[in-house]
Amino acid sequence: MSVDEEILEQLRRDRPLLPFLPLIYVAWADGELTAEEAAGIQAAIAAEGGLDAGCRERLGRWLDPDEPPSTRQLQAILRTVRQAGGRLPETARGSLAELGAGLAGLSGEPAVSAAERRALATLEQALGVAGGEVSRELLTEVRPAAVEAPTALDFEPARLTRLLDGDYAAVRQRVREVLSRPEFTYRLDLDREAYREQVLDWCRTLAGEGLGALAFPPEYGGAGDLGQFIAVFETLAFFDQSLLVKFGVQFGLFGGSVLQLGTRRHHRRYLAALGRLELPGCFAMSETGHGSNVADLATVARYDPATEEFEIHTPTPLDRKDWIGNAARHGRLATVFAQLEIAGERYGVHAFLVPIRDDDGRPLAGVEIEDCGPKEGLDGVDNGRLTFDRVRIPRDNLLDRFATVAADGTYDSPIASPTRRFFTMLGTLVGGRISVAAAALSAARSGLAIAIRYGERRRQFGPAGGAEVPLMDYRTHQRRLLPRLADSYAVGFAHRYLVERFLARSEEDAREVEGLAAGLKAYSSWQTVATLQSCRECCGGQGYLRVNRIAELMDDTDVYTTFEGDNTVLLQLVAKGLLTRYRHQFTDLRLGGAVRYLAARAAQALVEINPVFPRRTDDSHLRNPEFHLHALRYREERLLTTAAGRLKRRIDEGADSFAALNDCQDHLVALALAYVERVILERFQAALAGLEDDSLRPVLGRLYDLWALWRIEQDRGWFLENGYLEGNKAKAIRALVNAILPEVRRDALGLIEAFAIPDNCLAAPIAFAEAPDLPPAARTGDA
Amino acid sequence: MSVDEEILEQLRRDRPLLPFLPLIYVAWADGELTAEEAAGIQAAIAAEGGLDAGCRERLGRWLDPDEPPSTRQLQAILRTVRQAGGRLPETARGSLAELGAGLAGLSGEPAVSAAERRALATLEQALGVAGGEVSRELLTEVRPAAVEAPTALDFEPARLTRLLDGDYAAVRQRVREVLSRPEFTYRLDLDREAYREQVLDWCRTLAGEGLGALAFPPEYGGAGDLGQFIAVFETLAFFDQSLLVKFGVQFGLFGGSVLQLGTRRHHRRYLAALGRLELPGCFAMSETGHGSNVADLATVARYDPATEEFEIHTPTPLDRKDWIGNAARHGRLATVFAQLEIAGERYGVHAFLVPIRDDDGRPLAGVEIEDCGPKEGLDGVDNGRLTFDRVRIPRDNLLDRFATVAADGTYDSPIASPTRRFFTMLGTLVGGRISVAAAALSAARSGLAIAIRYGERRRQFGPAGGAEVPLMDYRTHQRRLLPRLADSYAVGFAHRYLVERFLARSEEDAREVEGLAAGLKAYSSWQTVATLQSCRECCGGQGYLRVNRIAELMDDTDVYTTFEGDNTVLLQLVAKGLLTRYRHQFTDLRLGGAVRYLAARAAQALVEINPVFPRRTDDSHLRNPEFHLHALRYREERLLTTAAGRLKRRIDEGADSFAALNDCQDHLVALALAYVERVILERFQAALAGLEDDSLRPVLGRLYDLWALWRIEQDRGWFLENGYLEGNKAKAIRALVNAILPEVRRDALGLIEAFAIPDNCLAAPIAFAEAPDLPPAARTGDA
Repeated sequence: MSVDEEILEQLRRDRPLLPFLPLIYVAWADGELTAEEAAGIQAAIAAEGGLDAGCRERLGRWLDPDEPPSTRQLQAILRTVRQAGGRLPETARGSLAELGAGLAGLSGEPAVSAAERRALATLEQALGVAGGEVSRELLTEVRPAAVEAPTALDFEPARLTRLLDGDYAAVRQRVREVLSRPEFTYRLDLDREAYREQVLDWCRTLAGEGLGALAFPPEYGGAGDLGQFIAVFETLAFFDQSLLVKFGVQFGLFGGSVLQLGTRRHHRRYLAALGRLELPGCFAMSETGHGSNVADLATVARYDPATEEFEIHTPTPLDRKDWIGNAARHGRLATVFAQLEIAGERYGVHAFLVPIRDDDGRPLAGVEIEDCGPKEGLDGVDNGRLTFDRVRIPRDNLLDRFATVAADGTYDSPIASPTRRFFTMLGTLVGGRISVAAAALSAARSGLAIAIRYGERRRQFGPAGGAEVPLMDYRTHQRRLLPRLADSYAVGFAHRYLVERFLARSEEDAREVEGLAAGLKAYSSWQTVATLQSCRECCGGQGYLRVNRIAELMDDTDVYTTFEGDNTVLLQLVAKGLLTRYRHQFTDLRLGGAVRYLAARAAQALVEINPVFPRRTDDSHLRNPEFHLHALRYREERLLTTAAGRLKRRIDEGADSFAALNDCQDHLVALALAYVERVILERFQAALAGLEDDSLRPVLGRLYDLWALWRIEQDRGWFLENGYLEGNKAKAIRALVNAILPEVRRDALGLIEAFAIPDNCLAAPIAFAEAPDLPPAARTGDA
Repeated sequence: MSVDEEILEQLRRDRPLLPFLPLIYVAWADGELTAEEAAGIQAAIAAEGGLDAGCRERLGRWLDPDEPPSTRQLQAILRTVRQAGGRLPETARGSLAELGAGLAGLSGEPAVSAAERRALATLEQALGVAGGEVSRELLTEVRPAAVEAPTALDFEPARLTRLLDGDYAAVRQRVREVLSRPEFTYRLDLDREAYREQVLDWCRTLAGEGLGALAFPPEYGGAGDLGQFIAVFETLAFFDQSLLVKFGVQFGLFGGSVLQLGTRRHHRRYLAALGRLELPGCFAMSETGHGSNVADLATVARYDPATEEFEIHTPTPLDRKDWIGNAARHGRLATVFAQLEIAGERYGVHAFLVPIRDDDGRPLAGVEIEDCGPKEGLDGVDNGRLTFDRVRIPRDNLLDRFATVAADGTYDSPIASPTRRFFTMLGTLVGGRISVAAAALSAARSGLAIAIRYGERRRQFGPAGGAEVPLMDYRTHQRRLLPRLADSYAVGFAHRYLVERFLARSEEDAREVEGLAAGLKAYSSWQTVATLQSCRECCGGQGYLRVNRIAELMDDTDVYTTFEGDNTVLLQLVAKGLLTRYRHQFTDLRLGGAVRYLAARAAQALVEINPVFPRRTDDSHLRNPEFHLHALRYREERLLTTAAGRLKRRIDEGADSFAALNDCQDHLVALALAYVERVILERFQAALAGLEDDSLRPVLGRLYDLWALWRIEQDRGWFLENGYLEGNKAKAIRALVNAILPEVRRDALGLIEAFAIPDNCLAAPIAFAEAPDLPPAARTGDA
């Protein structure tokens, strides 16, 4: 007989201890008993008059902290409990006491007495454990497999897709079909050069489908429909971001500059070839030394009336054009922004078409081209640097819609104000910003689709003795993903509104539309960074593998926070626009007047706090859209007037505009973000109000509530600080967000299905199976 | 005479208008005048009795919104103002009125009258512009170059380095010297395979220097000093993170498992070769299906007494070992964690040494090895997957310090409690977590060094007509970087404390040290993600280039948030440890008892709010360390007791432990982070209190204040919600943070110099010059 068998035999012989075995095991299984705990247990034993002295004594010995049982004794006890317990019905395992009683029963000995039952219950209590759960865990050697519960949706995702696709459903569908072709497959095996060629090929395919030229007039192969072009761009953003950016550079920025800054002669000469990608080009604005500060660009375009040419020149190495997409490999022609100089006088920044490569792809004389080298992401885009050494271009190459230079050097412009002229020219960037906001949004949606699908499939941990549960069951997981899913809908509605305003903009509201574009680009790109970071972490190690796409999306979209305008700089522009009511928004020097006006208006307190608002915590109030709108309006208004007051004080103290603005920078950024969120909230509310398909009302309503309350919760510091919320209300909001999360979680798979991201764009294996190289059927639960 | 010259001639002739030219230009330069503005100006003109009617009439025409001047007229006015204004002394340009008066003076005509001066001032007022600034801007065609102001530090960075290096200064210096050799140069040109070989070569160099084996006993080539090994690891983290991780896998995880889980026979057989990297190995714990949940690993080690072997087997594809460093290419031997099974019974997770490759690097029979493929970062580490098909290993290969299997299959262990045994074995991970926290910290310091040095050099925008200013002048820039610099010091002090506790840990405080390690790893890795994101954005496009390192650091360190334990999972362990006072911390089933105890204790309210605290806003109070410590203690204590109360309610309502914990997950994460921050605060305070070098007191004092107030500010929502702060105090804290930022900014270059990061580790060209390929001397200001 082995030692183990001896121990077992001894335990089995010792009938009076049999009912106590589960308790004894549990007392020791988790670690040594403290003296305090042991004393409590010993006292409980001693007090059990129902047990005979011998039993009490033996039990005391088994639970003596000075003489803990050995590994083998414990193991033998566990074995006995498991072997016998496994034969007990489920109902006889609800507590350690029941389990013990059952064991005794199985031994063939007399059933446990009432006194013994009382003693068992007392001891279980003294141990301080959750008996039913411990009992279940004790009897479980290997967790049971999970049973998949199909998700029942109360809406049809396809109807939601129709809503999201909106007016441009047809062209979006066409892009989805093109992207679904096998050639649009991510390639992780390509080196940088090959990747760039792949991206160019993809771009050619899209051009061949006529998708690049959609914004151009029909006579140049387009549809004259910028809205369609934007819809194409939004949909392409579900696929490779390098392709998207290359596409955007060629057709949006380069093409857009020729279309919008050029005149008929430029259109005739370039647009058709440009739209077919026979003329790859660049948008050369940024310089190494000047990115955000476009007005101070240093490249010079000097007019020479003798030859009727402009001489494009890079004065110092810092003034070379930098980060120029399409420059390192493929571009032939570049729209170059430079300081126009005529007869020794400066006329500000203008755009010129400068050939940079010949038909064989060799750099032209005087043009030095460098490669920017490996980047965080977007390595399929050939970003480069351009240095011009007195490169001469004909006078015709000035993009002269907003400014002309006559043969003799006479300068003229239909826009007399130089500031307005400058910002009208920069208007070409607005479309870019709108596009970046959309690209960031689509990328966030892709990341969420991957992380949520994985989170529903992936199981980890679970209740004692039960199956492991899907990650999406966890509150922290819901917290990390679902508000961001709601955000991706909220931003979507705001984006659509922005596009409508942009397409219909007039001279009057152009500044406001530009402000909204800048603000939404900043909001969207930052949220995408945060969303993708959450998605990455929620997918753990799988999220770290490039094949699962999220890392790639992070790397590619990170730059959206700083390109087409650094977010922090843009938000200050937005804030200045709000302070000056979108007039003279781009100059700081009239600030004094604007802030004095606003500071005076502050006394009137346009938005009042409803005195019952800070305290009301009932759900019907917390879910009331009027409360949300009021909160966001109040915050924006108050940040505006207090910013004005702060600026006024600084100016009155003698600070110059620059110093005053710098002193309030954090305030201005908060103001701009508050404005953007208010607009987003209004657009989400408008989307619900204008909903034609009633079947979507419940799901979007839940999503809306989550978004609105989450945003308020996120900034509760501000609302509390300013007396808009009281503590109990802030807590009630958090509790309600927690309560809504499981509701939205039930919708989540449908909400991401509604994005209608083609499978080969989503691509991430974990969106379809639990691991990259496992077939979709292999789920933890089935394994 | 050209049209331009005609206009100029006309303006010059028109003497009465000459003083008004600057005003006329400014009125139009910024865009069209609104009717409202124009009316105000016209009214001002009409009211100017001092001007003659003709002058008023002509002035009115020039400012008539219905007849704005043409581009050429405006341009001519600007030319006149500039040409003449340039000849005026600086003192005569302080306002548009002065400038105008000066112009008139230069024309040789009579000086402007007092009435004209009044009119000029009135009009300038009506325009609502900052006259002096506008005047400066008007006369500036190209911004002046900046003059570099040398930073004067009131401390010696080298002394701070001594403080940071502490007891292990010598070995840190040795590592810095090794890393400064030319061979330790980042290579962006290598493909993945070549990069892996490079990392292996680097690792060999370090092993050759004896740096890998430092923790091993001297008889195996080491110094028996884990503290030195950790110091080496921290310093290596300034260089390539792939090398760091490879080094950590080989010597820390694989070596550590042999050292700490094995016994003398394993040490003798493996440690010397392992320390020389002649035996590259793996630490094979994670599986595709189980990462965080180690207890449910599925790999099986079945004991066969007939042959005295263990059979290592992967039951399903989901159970293969995954993300195993050193597995895809170089590993020969692996520490494999598997469920020990003897005679049909399970004994829990144990560690086994399993050979995976022969001496020629070919996988052994029964071992299937796959490559994990491209990752977000750390591509120099050959992560792989291991699948075992009934691989037989001798009985000796059980790492048997904590459990033995006799020849006949009898299981025994010096630790009777299976839970305690499991977590003692997992203790090998604690060193890993401490190392990850340190690696994240060093990476954050590298990122900050790059971003701050660039931010001091890079200039963008500036006051009207003045030089552009360094990015570090901007409040938002300071806000984004300097609190994080302070954080990198704070975490450093806490990390040192953790290492000291870890090295001196006993059976009694092991759980607490593990909790602190888990918490600090989570805090540090998340802060690093946020810090590097800020650094990246603060460097704009330059930050996006790989050569500038930040993107690389982001990609490499992102995984630190989820490896060696997912942060969210770890923080829940920490919180459970706090709830159970570090006893039984790893099991949920005794939770009931713990929370009942704590919930009862809550009534006693151990930490009271001092009733004057919520309102005091004077600097001396806000900068008082006692206030900071009280705030962080209060938050932790309150989160602890309310979490206990919430759990108790759920359990009393009948929820099982799992459900109750899930319901409080967000609360538990907040509690754990509050605990970590309190410890960090205490360690920062202790570092100041124990400072021997008084010259460092001011700089560290400022940095401490910034950190403490910033942390409170960041969580002001909580403090306000719970009545610990009132609104005005929260605002005062924000204002004080803003006030401290410029103080710390003056120290910033010295604070990063103190990290003593070798130049070739920092490497980023923008840390030395403004652009990647420009020489260090080329600064915007000098250009």
